Amino acid sequence: MPKLITTRTRIADLGKPRVIVIGGGFGGLEVIKGMNGAKAQVVLFDKYNHHTFQPLLYQVATSGLETNTIVAPFRKLFSRQNDFYFRLGEVKNIRPEENFIETSIGGVKYDYLVIATGAVTNFYGLTEVEKHAAYMKNIVDATKLRNKIIRQLEYALLTEEEEVMNSLMDFVIVGGGPTGVELAGALTELKKNVFPKDYKELDMREMDIHLVEASPRLLNGMSEQASQKALDFLNEMGVKVHLNTAVKSYDGYEVNLSSGEKLISRTLIWAAGIKGNPISGFKPDVITRGNRLLVDEFSRVKGYDNIFAIGDVALMEGDEKFPKGHPQMAPPAQQQGRLVAKNIRNLISGSPLKPFRYFDKGSMATVGRNKAVVDMGKIRFQGFFAWYVWMFVHLMAIVGWKNRVFTFFSWMWSYLTYDRSNRLIIGRNEEKFSPEETKPH
Amino acid sequence: MPKLITTRTRIADLGKPRVIVIGGGFGGLEVIKGMNGAKAQVVLFDKYNHHTFQPLLYQVATSGLETNTIVAPFRKLFSRQNDFYFRLGEVKNIRPEENFIETSIGGVKYDYLVIATGAVTNFYGLTEVEKHAAYMKNIVDATKLRNKIIRQLEYALLTEEEEVMNSLMDFVIVGGGPTGVELAGALTELKKNVFPKDYKELDMREMDIHLVEASPRLLNGMSEQASQKALDFLNEMGVKVHLNTAVKSYDGYEVNLSSGEKLISRTLIWAAGIKGNPISGFKPDVITRGNRLLVDEFSRVKGYDNIFAIGDVALMEGDEKFPKGHPQMAPPAQQQGRLVAKNIRNLISGSPLKPFRYFDKGSMATVGRNKAVVDMGKIRFQGFFAWYVWMFVHLMAIVGWKNRVFTFFSWMWSYLTYDRSNRLIIGRNEEKFSPEETKPH
Repeated sequence: MPKLITTRTRIADLGKPRVIVIGGGFGGLEVIKGMNGAKAQVVLFDKYNHHTFQPLLYQVATSGLETNTIVAPFRKLFSRQNDFYFRLGEVKNIRPEENFIETSIGGVKYDYLVIATGAVTNFYGLTEVEKHAAYMKNIVDATKLRNKIIRQLEYALLTEEEEVMNSLMDFVIVGGGPTGVELAGALTELKKNVFPKDYKELDMREMDIHLVEASPRLLNGMSEQASQKALDFLNEMGVKVHLNTAVKSYDGYEVNLSSGEKLISRTLIWAAGIKGNPISGFKPDVITRGNRLLVDEFSRVKGYDNIFAIGDVALMEGDEKFPKGHPQMAPPAQQQGRLVAKNIRNLISGSPLKPFRYFDKGSMATVGRNKAVVDMGKIRFQGFFAWYVWMFVHLMAIVGWKNRVFTFFSWMWSYLTYDRSNRLIIGRNEEKFSPEETKPH
Repeated sequence: MPKLITTRTRIADLGKPRVIVIGGGFGGLEVIKGMNGAKAQVVLFDKYNHHTFQPLLYQVATSGLETNTIVAPFRKLFSRQNDFYFRLGEVKNIRPEENFIETSIGGVKYDYLVIATGAVTNFYGLTEVEKHAAYMKNIVDATKLRNKIIRQLEYALLTEEEEVMNSLMDFVIVGGGPTGVELAGALTELKKNVFPKDYKELDMREMDIHLVEASPRLLNGMSEQASQKALDFLNEMGVKVHLNTAVKSYDGYEVNLSSGEKLISRTLIWAAGIKGNPISGFKPDVITRGNRLLVDEFSRVKGYDNIFAIGDVALMEGDEKFPKGHPQMAPPAQQQGRLVAKNIRNLISGSPLKPFRYFDKGSMATVGRNKAVVDMGKIRFQGFFAWYVWMFVHLMAIVGWKNRVFTFFSWMWSYLTYDRSNRLIIGRNEEKFSPEETKPH
């Protein structure tokens, strides 16, 4: 018997079908936009009052962009959409048999439900690593990581012991996907262009950036050509790339690698994987690999008529090209979001449902100034032009015109001045450091 | 016997006189700039790694500006100044007899010391108010207040009980100085231009903004004419101004006023006063009214040869026009900072010290769009032109060109669109709300 919900969401009954969307990420936003003008009430539940542009979180963590340019408040985004309601709250449980959801601010009934709750960081059971690693799924995480990176350099000023200094000035990034590669590149640029001016007392040659990838190549989802070029770029920039290497343990200080090598660092950034973030209440057999919800070709959760799941949290069976599910990136989520909006309209009007067809737009990653790799079907290019394409595509994808303009100015400013945004430590020191100790307690 | 300091600041000994500046506010920055090129080592200690432009904190709290536009990292500001050192740390105690300071990161000796630690919020002993009130002295405070304001509206959606609704939608600002007046104005503009679009489910006529001032007029430091016009502006905008009224108590819900009136609000913002924030270690008789350090006409702490205090934390005796000390605003701090840099240079070179002459540039406050009041000596004006002057002066005063450009764009954007910046709740809910209860627990 689930706990009684005593607070009230107070969502008006419009006498129209109610569509509840859980999560305002890339997919959720497309569902809401797609429902504009439909004869339905659309309610968005999210733990935050804003959308976060996750692909650029790494720039916030490395002082490249400010938090505000990559977020957009939901109420502003949809202020002109009729019959749209937003509720700031966390959905705790679903009761499919009652068409009811339990949330942190009360319970409410739905006619159609869309699970767009995305993914969370996956530590694959390495609980000790989880405890000590930094990671980025939202702007609080990214800001904490920024604080941490800059604080380590402030602390490095206070010690003369070589090992302690190294533990503060060396950074270990785990996971050679786009996030890991982009973080490694951004840290290298801080090391090269910003920190030498900010920390004249430190010898920046002491700062090592390690990138650890378990598989034989970086950017596994991209072409061999892109992987190789990204590796070349990173090698050129001085990043120490460890391929075919996994992290065995990390206690906040010592990183033990599967190769037997040991690295010393107080900053290990985990970008090695994600897992679906479904909500409880489903039959257990719909939770499939990667903790994702099994959905049919219409993006409906298997065995439920009026519940859809999209994006990172969904795994669609039946697409031959993607037997393990579509890649957990923005485009599949957005395309599924648009499809689900259409299919809910079809259900309301009694029309047949449409199946999903994934249009693969390709993928890209940036390594640094004038250095990026782009795969667009058979068309593959790297370097200066790829970097421009990367910037343009991300700029256009950022939600909100003001954010776009500010991001453009920030990037131009950094490009021209070789400087970075305000490298701030917001708030007081959370982690204490004492140069007398070697390992942190 | 003070606690032994075991960590090390590791500040290099340059064989030159060492000037330690505590606090990088308006005054501290001027000391450092003024020491540029002098035969001295300058060390700045600050709890934060950035300067904060405090006069615009209220805009951060009301979603007018983003945090990053009003802060500037010290290392970046002084990256080209030779013999400048920054240390992120809090100074805990001074031992004047040993020319030594104790800090959170270790102890260090100085030849000259400048106390520029500013002020903290003064609750005048009202501990219950202190516990429940919001206030703004740094960007964390301002961000928390922004979170709180927006969260109250999210919560207001969840209740139907009139008193609970009012407690969430009504805001009480205490203190009719520039900060209180500017906050009241900014909240009114949110109520008028932003919240009606964001919160269509709420009746915005229910939102009351109270401004409580103990004295007979607003903007006490300015001319009668400015006070009257500010009051007219606020009345016009619908702010409920309570003059000659003090807050007697506040328990997080009920505000009891000296007039006998009772207001209900979960958001009381305290802008009613500040007090000096000196550091321990001085003879008790140098701590004078307002918790400020008594300084002579050279800005030296009374009875000490090589210790200066400037700005909000200093009270200079001997200026006939300001028998109670100079106003606790940026200009006196900046002017004293410049003077102290000169006087330290004079001490080093064996020249005579120069006394302080305060140049009163006047003062100004903004109430809202096209509404501001300016006093410049005998020249007084209000309204549209005053508003432009206010914007121009503040824009020029913001530290850093990039911040200036971004602030300008933000203001232009808001002016043209009537919209505000990203009204974000950063992080998860800190305060729980349940519509069943009346008073918060």
